[in-house]
Amino acid sequence: MSEIKEFESVDSALHQLPKDDYERVKKILYGNDTHEISIPEESKEMASKYNIELISCGFNCKEEQLRSPKVVRIALFQHKLVPFPTTTPIQEMKYALFKFANKAIRIAARAGVNIFCFPETWNMPYAFCTREKTPWCEYAENAQFGPTTKMLQELASIHNMVIISPILERDEIHNDSVWNTAVVIDNHGDYLGKHRKNHIPRSADFSEPIYYVEGNTGHPVFETEFGKIAVCFGRHHPLDWLVFGLNGAELVFCPAAAAGVTSEPLWSIESRNAALTNNYFTCAVNRVGIEVFENEFSTGDGKQPHRESEYFYGSSFVTAPNGTRSPGLSRTKNGLLIAEMDLNLCRQVKDQWGFQMAQRLDIYAECLSKATKPDFVPHIIRKACKPFSTL
Amino acid sequence: MSEIKEFESVDSALHQLPKDDYERVKKILYGNDTHEISIPEESKEMASKYNIELISCGFNCKEEQLRSPKVVRIALFQHKLVPFPTTTPIQEMKYALFKFANKAIRIAARAGVNIFCFPETWNMPYAFCTREKTPWCEYAENAQFGPTTKMLQELASIHNMVIISPILERDEIHNDSVWNTAVVIDNHGDYLGKHRKNHIPRSADFSEPIYYVEGNTGHPVFETEFGKIAVCFGRHHPLDWLVFGLNGAELVFCPAAAAGVTSEPLWSIESRNAALTNNYFTCAVNRVGIEVFENEFSTGDGKQPHRESEYFYGSSFVTAPNGTRSPGLSRTKNGLLIAEMDLNLCRQVKDQWGFQMAQRLDIYAECLSKATKPDFVPHIIRKACKPFSTL
Repeated sequence: MSEIKEFESVDSALHQLPKDDYERVKKILYGNDTHEISIPEESKEMASKYNIELISCGFNCKEEQLRSPKVVRIALFQHKLVPFPTTTPIQEMKYALFKFANKAIRIAARAGVNIFCFPETWNMPYAFCTREKTPWCEYAENAQFGPTTKMLQELASIHNMVIISPILERDEIHNDSVWNTAVVIDNHGDYLGKHRKNHIPRSADFSEPIYYVEGNTGHPVFETEFGKIAVCFGRHHPLDWLVFGLNGAELVFCPAAAAGVTSEPLWSIESRNAALTNNYFTCAVNRVGIEVFENEFSTGDGKQPHRESEYFYGSSFVTAPNGTRSPGLSRTKNGLLIAEMDLNLCRQVKDQWGFQMAQRLDIYAECLSKATKPDFVPHIIRKACKPFSTL
Repeated sequence: MSEIKEFESVDSALHQLPKDDYERVKKILYGNDTHEISIPEESKEMASKYNIELISCGFNCKEEQLRSPKVVRIALFQHKLVPFPTTTPIQEMKYALFKFANKAIRIAARAGVNIFCFPETWNMPYAFCTREKTPWCEYAENAQFGPTTKMLQELASIHNMVIISPILERDEIHNDSVWNTAVVIDNHGDYLGKHRKNHIPRSADFSEPIYYVEGNTGHPVFETEFGKIAVCFGRHHPLDWLVFGLNGAELVFCPAAAAGVTSEPLWSIESRNAALTNNYFTCAVNRVGIEVFENEFSTGDGKQPHRESEYFYGSSFVTAPNGTRSPGLSRTKNGLLIAEMDLNLCRQVKDQWGFQMAQRLDIYAECLSKATKPDFVPHIIRKACKPFSTL
């Protein structure tokens, strides 16, 4: 399977199909047509100079009689740690990533981006596969006052941009606990709030429960000048997605550290299903590349200990409330996906499809409540035993 | 878009890619490798004779130390009404479809199939687009004692096969009400029970609320000799899928009447997301073809009234508990998909991924309960107003 790591993307492979078939396959796999949006030359040149793939996509939406369009541009930034080895001292690693982030944010700013989102724990190696506490816990920062937030507040204010920054959080107030957290900074550079990951994976190299526990911040939706946004880490958990929708989210960002051959076929399914069932935009942004650690670690899969992480397959993409999706960024390269959407599309799709009217939340509240009880009896229909026949 | 109706399938188009790229694209889009299963020549010959596409697929599963494998074969049958016009008298239409069903069941029986499933309202035109009550309501039958159930009970018993038969149900006991219902017949030909569609669509040509209301049978799982099975009609509703999982389903059948260009891009997403998030097998089986009605009807989309239904795009397929999927049947032809799986895979994936351990149903029971209240206040974080500065 090693060669699949080099494979650029499904999108680029499909372009080899005959044109007619390509169009049909694309329509069936990706949904409605999207349109091109204008990206200034300056952004393109900077992206090329910094070796950042730049893709853009505009989603279609109807005009309404009473509501003005609510057009926003968002950017998803997927990036590697390389050329910085994971052994780089913490300050130095962060500074190098800050510099790179600054470049990406400037490219986005020139292209009129309103909301910018990083992948999960973007400012550090995804070191949870090692199960070592040192030095990785030292990367944890205060969500509101840490150096990463401070740095981004300045950029947010300069560029009039909302920034979502998923980091490892240190909560000094609560006994130095550690969390997997997304910080939301508004376009004036003010700290708006944070959301802690609700569902912690417990498999293969995703040894996150060794470091932190399930989040206690509920399902907040952040009201920004560019729309009501949320951050959902629980891409395998439809309920996590659902409740952000119930709270009114129009754009749900899903920062991920998704890696490996088992996980990749799920990537294009989960956030897209969330978009089309909840009728909001989802923005799935992944790390990219392989991270190599100093000490060998085992994966719990019976294979030899090793120093390489699974490959983070990038492929960041956006899905509209009707299931139409953007192209994906590459599986292997640093990249910036810029998408433009009219948030009015959310309610338009709700009006058209009416899923929310057929949702029956009341019966599910009851089902879930019963299912959590220790004496829960599943609803199973068995054939009744036939009585013994009398001879 | 008319030509897309003729397009065979995404699968067949992808075969035009260079071999290496095809393999990579397939791995990323479809997941783990599957294996070929042996289908007797007799089945193949019958399928060819009756003009039924026959596809098969085996899902891989590990052997365990304590549990014996629970290998089952299932069949999904997608079929057109054609050559019977929708104006065919009811008895005649049913009889013709019974004859065709009989053929498909015999093909499946020769291939050792244990569980057989039809698409939604399989024994009649999907006439709900017309919003006419006559003669369509006359198609409704008693779930337990109607002619379709009687006919299938005999076949189930002869062929030692569980049969899932989605029909329009007439409930004489409850004031002649009508329901969209799946009847489950066990392999001894006994009526095991029924499930009524929980979520009724309310858009475009899916004018089902004109005919029947939301089901009142909960989320039953049927314990059969070949595994614990359920029927989920609510493919757009992750909660519907979820509760069948909570009740212990290993195989969830999703009979559909899914049609048209807006719907098709969702088809490969929803049941697959359900399989991988709930860790059971899902079997999505769709109608195929276009149905033409005597009277013109409008679709509520501002376009001209017309006599043709949207095209039902077939594409029936199966997904394993880890998200790996089978190839799909054609978009345009009658077809029979036979899949073999070891139901032990469900628990193996749960053990591997642990989603069920990170599910936090308790917090969601509370969230949903709150969200249904008339005075529900969404959890929204806004910037606090800054106090006026004192001069």
